[in-house]
Amino acid sequence: MNSQSTYGTTEHQARAVHWFSKLRDDLCRALELLEADLEGPNASSELQPGSFKQTTWERPGEGGAAGGGGTMSVLRGRVLEKAGVNISEVNGEFSPEFRKNIPGADDDPTFWAAGISVVIHPRSPLVPAAHMNTRMIVTKKAWFGGGGDLTPVFADDEETALFHRAYKNACDRHDPSYYPTYKKACDAYFYLPHRKEPRGVGGIFVDNLNSGDWEKDFAFIQDIGLSFMGIYPQLVRRAMDLPWTEAQKQAQLVKRGRYVEFNLLQDRGTLFGIKTGGNTEAILMSMPPEVHWP
Amino acid sequence: MNSQSTYGTTEHQARAVHWFSKLRDDLCRALELLEADLEGPNASSELQPGSFKQTTWERPGEGGAAGGGGTMSVLRGRVLEKAGVNISEVNGEFSPEFRKNIPGADDDPTFWAAGISVVIHPRSPLVPAAHMNTRMIVTKKAWFGGGGDLTPVFADDEETALFHRAYKNACDRHDPSYYPTYKKACDAYFYLPHRKEPRGVGGIFVDNLNSGDWEKDFAFIQDIGLSFMGIYPQLVRRAMDLPWTEAQKQAQLVKRGRYVEFNLLQDRGTLFGIKTGGNTEAILMSMPPEVHWP
Repeated sequence: MNSQSTYGTTEHQARAVHWFSKLRDDLCRALELLEADLEGPNASSELQPGSFKQTTWERPGEGGAAGGGGTMSVLRGRVLEKAGVNISEVNGEFSPEFRKNIPGADDDPTFWAAGISVVIHPRSPLVPAAHMNTRMIVTKKAWFGGGGDLTPVFADDEETALFHRAYKNACDRHDPSYYPTYKKACDAYFYLPHRKEPRGVGGIFVDNLNSGDWEKDFAFIQDIGLSFMGIYPQLVRRAMDLPWTEAQKQAQLVKRGRYVEFNLLQDRGTLFGIKTGGNTEAILMSMPPEVHWP
Repeated sequence: MNSQSTYGTTEHQARAVHWFSKLRDDLCRALELLEADLEGPNASSELQPGSFKQTTWERPGEGGAAGGGGTMSVLRGRVLEKAGVNISEVNGEFSPEFRKNIPGADDDPTFWAAGISVVIHPRSPLVPAAHMNTRMIVTKKAWFGGGGDLTPVFADDEETALFHRAYKNACDRHDPSYYPTYKKACDAYFYLPHRKEPRGVGGIFVDNLNSGDWEKDFAFIQDIGLSFMGIYPQLVRRAMDLPWTEAQKQAQLVKRGRYVEFNLLQDRGTLFGIKTGGNTEAILMSMPPEVHWP
C-alpha cells in the first residue's frame, strides 16, 4: 500500500513501528526505575515495586484485509497505581460511516495505522497523571499525530511550567510555530464542556501532520516521545516521596471521574476504537484503577 | 403548547408532573425504610441509616423559550450506597442537530418534557443495582417513554424471575403484546457491544408510546413506576442482611465499570442531556459512587 509514495512508504512504516517498539521498551524501563527508587513513608507499605507485564492481542480479521495486533504493557505498582503502554500495528478498511471523516479514505477505505499510547495513573494524589501517544496513519494519504498532556489533581505552577517547557523545547527544535499551535490545540481538545473544566493543564496535541517531508515529521514525532520520557519521570520524582492526606486522595478519585467522563464521552481515539471493533481491553487500558463519583 | 390536542394537553402535562412528584415521594420513603430495617452483621458497622437530601436546579434560559428545572433527591446509606431520584420538567427548543431525530420536532423545535429517573447502587454486591424512569414528552407530537431494569453483580435466577414477573404483570394489565415487545427492546438497548455483554438481566424498555389514548398510556406509565416500587425493595430485602466477601465486593466494583461505560458511551438519555446543556450533576447522578477498572 502506498509503496510508490514518497511519504509513508513501507520502509517508513517499518521504521515507525520499530521506533514505537523501542520507545515502549525505554519508557517502561524508566517507569520501572521510579518504582524501585521510592523512599520514605510511601515505601514502607506492603506494596512492592511494580514491573510491566505484557499481553499481546491480534486484530480479528473480519474484513479480507483486516489484520495486525498489538501489545499491552501494564504496570501496577506502588508509585504508579496503573501505567499502561500500548503499541499496535493494524490494517483494514474503514466502515462507510467513518470514510468521509478520514483524510484520503473517501475513495479507498483501506488503511494502515501504528502507534504507541501511554496512560499513567499514579497512586499519590500529589503526582500528576499523564498521557502521551504518537501514531502514523496511511490511507491514500499519510500523516502523523500525537502529543502529551498532564493531569494533576492539584495544579502546581512549577510542575506545569516544567512540563510545558519540555514540550516547547521539543517543538522549537523543529518549527517555531509548532508549540503555540499545538498547545492551543491541546487546550481545546482536553476540555469537558459539560463540566466547564479542562481535563488537566495541557501540553501539546498534534494531528494530520504531514509537512511533505517524512523524515522531518518523524524526527518531531520521536521528540514528542523522548520529551515525555525526559520530563515525566522528573515530575514524578519531585512528589512521589511526599506523604498525602485522605482528603487529597479523595480529591484524586473524584478527579479521575472527570478523566473517565472525558475518555468515554469525548476522546476521539477511544470512541473510534470502541465503535470500530478495536481491542476493548487495550482501548480501555486508559481507565483509572479506582474512581469515585461523590 | 399543544393545548388543542387531545393527547398531551396542558392538563395532561400537569397530571404527569404531579404523578412523577408523588411517585418520587413514595419511592424515596420506601427506600428509606430499607435503610432503617437492615439487620445482622451489615447493620453493625459505623454507617447510619441514610435519608434522601433534595437539591433543586433551574434550567438556564439560553433560548427564549427555555426554562424549567428539577429536583435531585440523593440518599447515601448503609444499604443503598447511592440512590438518586430525579424529577424534572423542562421546556425549550431542540438544537438543529437533534431536530430530525425527534418525532414532531423537524418543523417546530419547541418541546416540553417531564419525568422521573431512578438509579440505585447498593452497597452489598449481593443486592442488585436498579434503574427506572418514566417520562412524557411533547413536541408537535406527544408520547411517553420509560422502563425499569435490574443489574445484579451475580445474577440469581429467582431474583431475575421475580423482577420480570412484576413487569410482566404490569404490562399484561394493559396489553398482552407489551411485555414481549418491551422486554426484547430492553435486552437490545442495555447491551455493551464492545464487551459483548448485557448490562444486566433486563426488564422493560418503552419509547415513543402513544396509543392515541392518553389515559390508557398514562395508566401504564404509572404502573411501570408502581411495579418498580413493589418489586425492587422486595429484592433488596432478600439479600441485604447477608454477609459478603471482599472478592464479591471487588466483582461489584468492576461490574460498576461496565455500568459507567454503558451510560457514557451509549445511553441515549445521558448523551442527549450532556450534549444539549442539561444539568450535569443531575444527569451524572447515575454514576456509581466507587468503581474499579482492574
